[in-house]
Amino acid sequence: MRYSEIFGKTLKNIPADIQLPSHQLLVKGGFIRQVSSGRFAILPLGYLVSEKVVNIIDAKMRELGSLRIETPTLHPIEIWKKTNRDQAFGDLMHVVEDHREAKFALGATAEGLMTELVKAENPTYRDFPILIHQFSQKFRDEMRPRGGLLRVREFMMKDAYSFHTTEDDLKEWYQKYFDAYLEIAKSLDLTVVPVVADSGAIGGDYNHEFMVESASGEDLFVKCESCHSAWSLEKLEKDENKKFEDGDACPKCESGALKFTRSIEWGHTFNQGQFYSIPHKANFVDQDGAQKPLWQGAYGIGIGRTMATVVETHHDDKGIMWPKNLAPYKVHLTSLGPSEEVSELADKVYSDFNENGTTVLFDDRNVHPGEKLQDMDLIGIPFRVVISTRSIGGGGVEVSYRDNEKSDVVPASQIADLLNSFYT
Amino acid sequence: MRYSEIFGKTLKNIPADIQLPSHQLLVKGGFIRQVSSGRFAILPLGYLVSEKVVNIIDAKMRELGSLRIETPTLHPIEIWKKTNRDQAFGDLMHVVEDHREAKFALGATAEGLMTELVKAENPTYRDFPILIHQFSQKFRDEMRPRGGLLRVREFMMKDAYSFHTTEDDLKEWYQKYFDAYLEIAKSLDLTVVPVVADSGAIGGDYNHEFMVESASGEDLFVKCESCHSAWSLEKLEKDENKKFEDGDACPKCESGALKFTRSIEWGHTFNQGQFYSIPHKANFVDQDGAQKPLWQGAYGIGIGRTMATVVETHHDDKGIMWPKNLAPYKVHLTSLGPSEEVSELADKVYSDFNENGTTVLFDDRNVHPGEKLQDMDLIGIPFRVVISTRSIGGGGVEVSYRDNEKSDVVPASQIADLLNSFYT
Repeated sequence: MRYSEIFGKTLKNIPADIQLPSHQLLVKGGFIRQVSSGRFAILPLGYLVSEKVVNIIDAKMRELGSLRIETPTLHPIEIWKKTNRDQAFGDLMHVVEDHREAKFALGATAEGLMTELVKAENPTYRDFPILIHQFSQKFRDEMRPRGGLLRVREFMMKDAYSFHTTEDDLKEWYQKYFDAYLEIAKSLDLTVVPVVADSGAIGGDYNHEFMVESASGEDLFVKCESCHSAWSLEKLEKDENKKFEDGDACPKCESGALKFTRSIEWGHTFNQGQFYSIPHKANFVDQDGAQKPLWQGAYGIGIGRTMATVVETHHDDKGIMWPKNLAPYKVHLTSLGPSEEVSELADKVYSDFNENGTTVLFDDRNVHPGEKLQDMDLIGIPFRVVISTRSIGGGGVEVSYRDNEKSDVVPASQIADLLNSFYT
Repeated sequence: MRYSEIFGKTLKNIPADIQLPSHQLLVKGGFIRQVSSGRFAILPLGYLVSEKVVNIIDAKMRELGSLRIETPTLHPIEIWKKTNRDQAFGDLMHVVEDHREAKFALGATAEGLMTELVKAENPTYRDFPILIHQFSQKFRDEMRPRGGLLRVREFMMKDAYSFHTTEDDLKEWYQKYFDAYLEIAKSLDLTVVPVVADSGAIGGDYNHEFMVESASGEDLFVKCESCHSAWSLEKLEKDENKKFEDGDACPKCESGALKFTRSIEWGHTFNQGQFYSIPHKANFVDQDGAQKPLWQGAYGIGIGRTMATVVETHHDDKGIMWPKNLAPYKVHLTSLGPSEEVSELADKVYSDFNENGTTVLFDDRNVHPGEKLQDMDLIGIPFRVVISTRSIGGGGVEVSYRDNEKSDVVPASQIADLLNSFYT
């Protein structure tokens, strides 16, 4: 891809009220644009990253045996009323009335809808477990959107749901999703700490938040340095019915000290027991012929928030440092200066990459070298090739890596080998 | 995939008010389920087809040079007011008020939003053409949804937009999208007739609908048998300001007879000229330094409607007949009867397919052979393998094709060759 042809270029100046690093860098780098408060357009460069995030999560869900589906955005409000969640979500829920005066909730999550979908199939014990997931736009009418993609009013979410005939089966599968979340986090290069959390308006028996340590986070997780128990602060204080401070004694082992860590909630898994199935009368026919309520779990990850969390944890003061798995292109190629020799070699290297099927962003603009090198740092592709009169004088092209200062001047013919050893 | 593990099985009985073949077959086959009037869930089997439709369209858009993006579902109502399209769409538009009393339209289409997005980048002539597309949920508060996925209240749509500095450049690119639509239709095995159409509430200078002949269609296109001019009936009557009937003289060549054909509008391309850019004040800086309004086009295809159109044109009285490109799995494998020899061979053939990476739906249920064969016809995968005591007696497995009666009994070792020659 020629950078000159990309829609959405880097920006030098961004609004002063943009404060979090991920928000600043994703806007400056040309990955996202705000359309209205809490609503963002994902530009082509950002879409390439979000597509990789989606593919990593989708592949892991399919590996678990989950089947992908698609459900409507507008849910009949009656579905939400069955569990009083129209009240529990309250102002966070967008409601729309159609021209026949029927009311619909804009999906903030989809447990109720999925429970109705499963119920309508009149399942028997032979059909379980039922494992389904989707990637769809979710809506929360947040009071105060903040931090770019960290807290928004609508966002793409992977929501997965599992349905079971027994509590034991649900627990066993809950653990499989839990483990899958740890593996997904690893593929995304995120260090996560699962903590016991409050289920809030989603409901259920117990649940875990997968927290990523970050000064930009708005959550606190609490971990005992002795017994390693971990909670969200909210959940701990609710359970113990008292306030805690960093360094307080652990209420579980009573010996360790509690450590508070500022963090971002990246993902959330819920064991929802029969919270939905009983009010929804969502039953299955068991081996003995009896109708019994289902057991179910739900598992969510926001795609935009994942991108923001990765940027919060992978940047320096010059820009983004994408993990290899998520970089929008494998190579950032830049030519410096107006020399014809430089642009000929750059064109050749560019077409070689294209022929090999290596995705490459080629900054072919006729602008000041300083600007091109700054944009290269800002955009944050891990493997870089710079071609200049100096590099040609030194033997060919300069290969460098976003995450360290090291650079080598090598013949152009060696790029492919360096690239292979970097990406394997 | 074992059919016993699929979520959403075939149905024997469906509501009597389901009348169109595609609606009947997609519901009976377990591809879709209605959630509320005009809103459908796409079940796992349906998702596999819709994913293929998306990939075919996306690949062709990327081949044109279009970049994929993602925009919010809720558009500030002010965007729609700039072209009075809140009035033009009227009751068809869903509007939601958030808890700060700000009004948003649920995206019915996105020209205004895209125009604002391009404008905000302060483009210069060097940045053009700008070619972008997305796949996103669209909303139309239809009075009378009908025909399952043919006319719905929300649907996944590919909407592409192109922006240009001159009218000539727009025309040249409009033609490229037009040609791309013909190629996409060919990949989908749809026979389309492009007709001059009315732009309705979308606005613009001229546009084409891509019509597929079908008795289930709710549109009529009109073609002159002599000069081959083609219009939507609506457009022809509007332009000529009179009513027409089948067989009337062509108003263009004045010699040919007009033929009316009932059809489905599958896709739509719009040359929108400066319909949006002028009221939006969406300008670019030209070579001479002057600010000039953009020229733009828009290009839409509904994913669900594509699936329905394919089924309308690819079925018989037993069920769906998926084109090779769109079949949810490459092979439908069925074992008949309780014999251990049969189930051992079927398991072996199934694991061979999985090892080769051939996608396969394996009907492993312990139900009556007649039911399995009926479901095989209903689901409509083009290449089928049936294993029974009789096939084993006859030499191995029975290979048959959904679109003809021919079947051969061959050794299991020959399946791969037959499959390769069928799919290439």
